[in-house]
Order: sequence, then C-alpha cells, then structure tokens
Amino acid sequence: MSEPTIEEIRQASERIGPFVHRTPVLTSSTLNQICTAEIFFKCENFQKAGAFKIRGATNAVFSLGDEEASRGVATHSSGNHGAALALAARWRGIKAYVVMPGNAPHIKREAVASYGAEIVLCRPTLQAREEGLEKILDRTGATVIHPYNDYRVISGQGTVARELCEEIPGLDIVMAPVGGGGLLSGTAIAVSAISPRTLIIAAEPERADDAYRSFHAGSIIPADNPDTIADGLRTSLGDLTFPIIRRYVKDILTVSEEAIIDAMRSIWERMKIIVEPSAAVPLATLLVNRGEFSGKRIGVILSGGNVDLEHLPWTS
Amino acid sequence: MSEPTIEEIRQASERIGPFVHRTPVLTSSTLNQICTAEIFFKCENFQKAGAFKIRGATNAVFSLGDEEASRGVATHSSGNHGAALALAARWRGIKAYVVMPGNAPHIKREAVASYGAEIVLCRPTLQAREEGLEKILDRTGATVIHPYNDYRVISGQGTVARELCEEIPGLDIVMAPVGGGGLLSGTAIAVSAISPRTLIIAAEPERADDAYRSFHAGSIIPADNPDTIADGLRTSLGDLTFPIIRRYVKDILTVSEEAIIDAMRSIWERMKIIVEPSAAVPLATLLVNRGEFSGKRIGVILSGGNVDLEHLPWTS
Repeated sequence: MSEPTIEEIRQASERIGPFVHRTPVLTSSTLNQICTAEIFFKCENFQKAGAFKIRGATNAVFSLGDEEASRGVATHSSGNHGAALALAARWRGIKAYVVMPGNAPHIKREAVASYGAEIVLCRPTLQAREEGLEKILDRTGATVIHPYNDYRVISGQGTVARELCEEIPGLDIVMAPVGGGGLLSGTAIAVSAISPRTLIIAAEPERADDAYRSFHAGSIIPADNPDTIADGLRTSLGDLTFPIIRRYVKDILTVSEEAIIDAMRSIWERMKIIVEPSAAVPLATLLVNRGEFSGKRIGVILSGGNVDLEHLPWTS
Repeated sequence: MSEPTIEEIRQASERIGPFVHRTPVLTSSTLNQICTAEIFFKCENFQKAGAFKIRGATNAVFSLGDEEASRGVATHSSGNHGAALALAARWRGIKAYVVMPGNAPHIKREAVASYGAEIVLCRPTLQAREEGLEKILDRTGATVIHPYNDYRVISGQGTVARELCEEIPGLDIVMAPVGGGGLLSGTAIAVSAISPRTLIIAAEPERADDAYRSFHAGSIIPADNPDTIADGLRTSLGDLTFPIIRRYVKDILTVSEEAIIDAMRSIWERMKIIVEPSAAVPLATLLVNRGEFSGKRIGVILSGGNVDLEHLPWTS
C-alpha cells in the first residue's frame, strides 16, 4: 500500500460520510481580537465519540474485505482510538477487541464498553499491551488497526482538513496538534492538495516534543515516557506518518503546560465549548507567538472534547 | 405602548441583526435516544455576552430616540442583563449605568466593567438597589431598561424563538426556562404567531416556582428570596410578562436542583458545550418526564453559558 493521496481522502470521506458528523467551523470575535488574526476552529470535539479519531477508525474498518472483517478488529489503546474503533466496529456489525491497562481511567473503560467492544485488561506497560494484543490475534484472527501508523487511518483523519479547506477557502495557515502524527499527516496531504499555498503548522507540548526533535533531526526520535496534560499527544511519530510530515509541514511549534491550560480555558470561556487539553495546543502556540500570526487567516483543528469533568486542570 | 406582536419581533430582528449572533441549532443523537424524542437546541449560550439577554437589551437601546439615548441607560442587575445592557450601550455609543450589590461575583463585575459601563455599588438589598438606581436617574436623566418587564426587551427576546421556528419548522413543542418571563413571553408571542399548533411549555426550578404558582393561581405570586442554583431564574414574573404567559403558555413544569445539575452535566458531556444551570432547566424537565414527550419534535432554548469555571456544581 502506498502513501495516501487526496483521492484516498476523497474516498474516505464517502466511506465514512454516512456515519460521522460533518463538524461545524466556529469563530470567536474575542479570540480574533486577542490574536489580531482570523481563526476558524474546526470542531472535532463535536464529532461522534468526542474526537476526530472516529474518522480514521471508521475508514479502516469499512476498508476491510468481508472475510477479513468477519474476524473482527483489535487495538491497544487507553485513549480515544479504543472507543472510536469500538464504535466503528459496531457500525459494521463486527467484533472489536481493545487491550487496555488495568489502571486506565474508569470513564475510558466505560466508553469502550458502552460501544460493545471486548476489553482485555493488562498491566500498564507497552510490553504487556503488545503481548495482550498478540494473544487476541492468535485466538481470533482479528485485524489490528493501529491508532495512527496506518494509511487507512491517515486517510480518514485527512477528511477533517478536507472539509475545513472546502468550507473556508483561502486560509494562510492550517494548524493541527501532533502526537503520533495521524491527524497531522492526513491534514498535510489534504491541505497541500486542495490549497497548495496554505502553510501547515503543527503544535506540540514542550514536554512531549518528539515530533519537534524528530522534524529537526531528520529521523524519528521517540518520546521517553512523556508527561503532559495533553494526554492525546504523548505518543511518538510512526514510520508512516513521519515522512509525510517532513515533506509537507512548514514548522512545529512547542508550548508549555501552563500555556496549554490557559488556551483550553480561553476556549471554554470565550467560545462556550468543551475541548480536551490536546485540542488547545494549537491555540496555545498562537497565543504565545501572537505577533507572528497577526493578520493571517488561520484554520485550527480542535481535535477532541473528552475531558473528565470531575478534574479540571484549573481547579486541581 | 401595547403588547408586542410578531411584527414588533420582526422589527427587533432587523434592529439587532447587525450586532448579535444568529445562533446555531444543535442536536445530540444520544440525548434524543435517552428522551426518545427529537430535540433541537437553540444555542444562546454562544450569543454575544454569553446569553440571550443581549437581544432584549440591544432592541431596547436602539429603540430610543437620539435625545433620550444621549442621556444613557441604567439598570440594576447582578446577572447577565447588566453585562448585556453595558455592551448594547457601547454599540450605540452611549453611557450605561449598572447598579450592582457589593457582594456580586467578581467575574460579573468584570464583565460589566469590560464593556465600559459605570458600575454603582450598593448594599445587597432590593431597596438599596432601587435607591441607587433612583440617584443615577436624578443625576443623569438616563432611561431605565428593566431586565424583563419592558415590551422592547420582550420583543428582543422573542427573536430567539423566531429564528428557531424559521429554521426548524413543524415543532410539536418549544420549551424555555422562566424567571422574570422576558424570554418566555417573547417566545410565546413568536411561536404562537409563526407556528400556531406548536405548544409552548415553560420550565422552572422547584425552589423558585413563582411562575408555576402564579400560572395556576391566576395572579402574580412573587418569589420569596428563592434559593436555586439556576441563578438566572430567581426573579419573579412582571405585570407585563404574566398576561402574555397566561394566554399562550400550555404548561409550566418544575424540577429539583439535582435534576438541573444532572441535565447541565449531560449537556456538557454529550454535546461538549457549556451552558449555565438556568439553561439546563428545560432539558431537566424533559429527562424527568421523558415518557410524556416520547416521539415529539421539541425545540429547547439554551438560554446562556455564563458559568464560573472554578466552581462547578458537581465538583463542589
């Protein structure tokens, strides 16, 4: 399978269209004033299962042949991808197996279980997760759907930026957060094809800056157990996402934890919408570097809205 | 001045159109499933200054003649109306005077001040507020804009339901929260004119059920210092709002504090949008009485989104 093109992203849009939301693009005159820029927020926090992840998972699940699909799909994930894969599998009427560490937040286990997936608990190490996944594959013959290092997933995530560029033409910049790079590489392919003069800029927590370091080193430097409130961005780039990012992305900006929390709170207060910390990272880089973006038309992908409402970063 | 008609509401839409948002109507498949109904949420939490109040205030401020306007506008309010009047006055380029009790939340004083109004602090009693307001009127000749007992304000609030009925035809029911009755009476006039077969149902906290009691008694029974988390609904009906409500409203449903908090949290979690407790009262009545609303198409006005993010009802 070769690197996705805009044609694969178009096909993904058709494939997932009956299941996922075409999310709205919102603006905030107050945030525009603060940044002296025109910002267009693509609201994947309103997406099914609360994050863009459902797009890639659904595209992957519905790309499978019937025979392959009948054996189910599997992943190890303590985050949004596990819930997304569970929901996509339910839509196709097949089984999903999700390996999760026993210490994963109760709320995340509940989400995965509510979509009807079979949860396999393991110890909270990467090795235990991978062993747990291997056992499932041996037992069931299920197909592994990786959270980001998979071209079908990348194509699905690219549908976000495709919708954004169609709805708001003439953007100077499109910004996305970067963790494993699935959203960013899909965004890069879509934007560079649809709007070649638009710059693609990634945003990353300082405390999980493996993409920033890899981008500048020219080879993948994995993160070493990063600790950031932006829990969706703790993963490291994959060998499929990295080359796409190197080719198309103009720059990767990093920000402090404090700036992420401030930006998240600004979105809650000014826009009255709920975003998770990872989703606030691009706006955080805009607020920190606001002089540089003055006067620009900027598309910002708000990647998700799954937050534990019992524990907000500014009250704890 | 006589009771507003749909024509006054149309004029209000034109008058305020250049300043306020035409807010979106959102749906949630999960909440629809839970209620076994089709619910259309009119999102005034996304409105300028964070609540529907800006519509009535703007209509009133821009209804004034130039000479009258030049002396400014005044009100006593510790809530959303004070901020709304301050912003509307700024748009018209005139002064606003807002009498507030010294113990009003800091965040509310800041909002009023940020829109450039002159704040006059007083002791936290109705008498002190009214005396404070009188002094301002003597000094400035400003025009008082009451938060709800004013036909210009009622016409402005009616533009919410006008937009909702235009965008979503064929609703069985429209629901609005009721405090002083400005939003509800404007809603009643708009809905009964545009969609006569649509029932208008109001929602109120049990702990501030003056509208419920007045509705059934046939005369205004003021609330006696009500204590509810729905701080926008603590006021009592006015002599201008009550007759309109009696004529057009089918029923007033009341709910417990617990049900209000549950509904508020459901909106945050399921829809990823921020609403204040008062805005969650209609959904609370739907959730409590869900059998009765099964199969209906229901418009619900989400009145506002101004919440102190430091103190959420489910964490304190």
